[in-house]
Amino acid sequence: MTRFVLVAGTTETARIDGISAAGADADLRVHTPSADAELIEFGHLVRAPVVPVSPTGCPTPAAVTRAVRERVGFETLVVDAGLAKPTGAPTVGVGAKPGRDVREADPVPTAPGAWVAARTLGRNLPDDELVVGETIPGGTTTALGVLRALGVDTASAGKSVVSSSLPENPLELKERVIEAAFEASDLAPGEAAYRPELAVRFVGDPVLAVVAGLTAGALESGTDVILGGGTQLLAAAALVRHAGVADPLTLASTSYVAADADLSLAADLDCETAITDPGFGTRDDALARYADGEAKEGAGMGGALLVAERAGTLDAVADGTLDIVERLTPRHGP
Amino acid sequence: MTRFVLVAGTTETARIDGISAAGADADLRVHTPSADAELIEFGHLVRAPVVPVSPTGCPTPAAVTRAVRERVGFETLVVDAGLAKPTGAPTVGVGAKPGRDVREADPVPTAPGAWVAARTLGRNLPDDELVVGETIPGGTTTALGVLRALGVDTASAGKSVVSSSLPENPLELKERVIEAAFEASDLAPGEAAYRPELAVRFVGDPVLAVVAGLTAGALESGTDVILGGGTQLLAAAALVRHAGVADPLTLASTSYVAADADLSLAADLDCETAITDPGFGTRDDALARYADGEAKEGAGMGGALLVAERAGTLDAVADGTLDIVERLTPRHGP
Repeated sequence: MTRFVLVAGTTETARIDGISAAGADADLRVHTPSADAELIEFGHLVRAPVVPVSPTGCPTPAAVTRAVRERVGFETLVVDAGLAKPTGAPTVGVGAKPGRDVREADPVPTAPGAWVAARTLGRNLPDDELVVGETIPGGTTTALGVLRALGVDTASAGKSVVSSSLPENPLELKERVIEAAFEASDLAPGEAAYRPELAVRFVGDPVLAVVAGLTAGALESGTDVILGGGTQLLAAAALVRHAGVADPLTLASTSYVAADADLSLAADLDCETAITDPGFGTRDDALARYADGEAKEGAGMGGALLVAERAGTLDAVADGTLDIVERLTPRHGP
Repeated sequence: MTRFVLVAGTTETARIDGISAAGADADLRVHTPSADAELIEFGHLVRAPVVPVSPTGCPTPAAVTRAVRERVGFETLVVDAGLAKPTGAPTVGVGAKPGRDVREADPVPTAPGAWVAARTLGRNLPDDELVVGETIPGGTTTALGVLRALGVDTASAGKSVVSSSLPENPLELKERVIEAAFEASDLAPGEAAYRPELAVRFVGDPVLAVVAGLTAGALESGTDVILGGGTQLLAAAALVRHAGVADPLTLASTSYVAADADLSLAADLDCETAITDPGFGTRDDALARYADGEAKEGAGMGGALLVAERAGTLDAVADGTLDIVERLTPRHGP
């Protein structure tokens, strides 16, 4: 049996101007993981006050994952990896708190503890296969920090391994932020090799700690793991390898990430890749923005698409996604 | 679409000797709701260190609910209504804390807030129908307190409305406990009529507050609600009516509760009853204890059985339950 695990959290790094399109603006971005979790769990918003869209109105990839779920019917588990806003989705805790700005000295002090708790959780889940996705605005920047802390070459093929939710990847900005992160913390690039908890704690985010810990634990107990996502899941794969876990691993991503970023690092990490194209490029609705390079991936979208492809329902995903997006309205209490 | 909601919490009232069979002893009973939630969610234990059984080894009714879920495939939502021990099941919070012993002056101060949050949650869930169950050892005693606080006659037909997880219902003990509860709090029997939040706060438990609040909110937004359980769900129905919510409501319970307790109060509360017999009485395994009057109900068992009956799979429930019980082993980390 396959279970979809959404690891949902936040980092204040996402407040930096121009760094993320996972939310209409910096104040709204902090709601995106809570809203994504509700969307995948219920297909509706329950507590989130805002529909997660990019500044130009591109729908969240969580709608794609939900569309696949409505067809294929997999079970879900949302792990709270530092949510900053209430969610109506049920979550399991691992002791993670929202990450602070990576330019601070110790931005994710809860990372090592969350790693351990997530590893135990991953080891004890009874499923045959996990598809693990993430939702954390600003996460590609912290992924860059983590890769560099591990000593992984992030631009081996002239193209960066780091993707973006924006059509124009603000790579220079990300580099400046990560440079400041290393300056602020007591860690040098490469210094966290084989000590992955240090990488997530000092230049990373709580979601990476939890994805990596959960994946390591699941693999150790004989559960297959598909990492559904782009750059961030690649960073998680690197963390898993640097934790000494060598079991087979698959990175399932979208054609939009594959067009934007260099995923050849996956092979260096002994990680198979599966790239799926949901065909949004042929559409004339809001989903076409994906083909223009917005959003690209997130909330396990690449993993969900692989599940849809295996189930033979990939063709139905685009219409299903649009149906979900069109029925979304934020819920308000009381 | 039907969603099964498990409202899981604790009250220190369950520590009173001889009051509950929902757990092998008082120290283990406090784990039962956390374990029940895992069982329904995963069909296995994930974080709970102990398999929930009665002192004589009668399996938890959560295994019955899970058996139905494995056949019928309904979605679930676990609401944390004051869990005292970690659970690996994902939960949604409503601000409830574990209830203290009802013989204290103000045992459930979080009840009014949890009621309001649960009502909003119930209003915003997108489902067509909810089946609501509870897991809280000691809950029939606090249900007796709540019914009496509302001024409901609890022994109209010579038979008590209050059931028990024990074969011999310790009614005298429950009466003494509730008498002490009224003495300790600033509330007299009948004084909480039409003020249900007071009943749950001063002589009740957090689970009743959350079940009633959630049910009221769901009914108000046009969602059908089946209350799956016995005495405690009847007390929740009374709370809903005393909150001024008059929509149709169904109490789905087991034949074991119906044999033990007077459910005619349901009619007074304008609440339909649906009694289902899973046929455990014809068996020679651990499930036969149900027919001997152990456990009887809990973790939404009566509601799940009604769902199974509607789906035409009632006959498969007993074998399914035994399969689940036999594969259960507590998980330990790391």
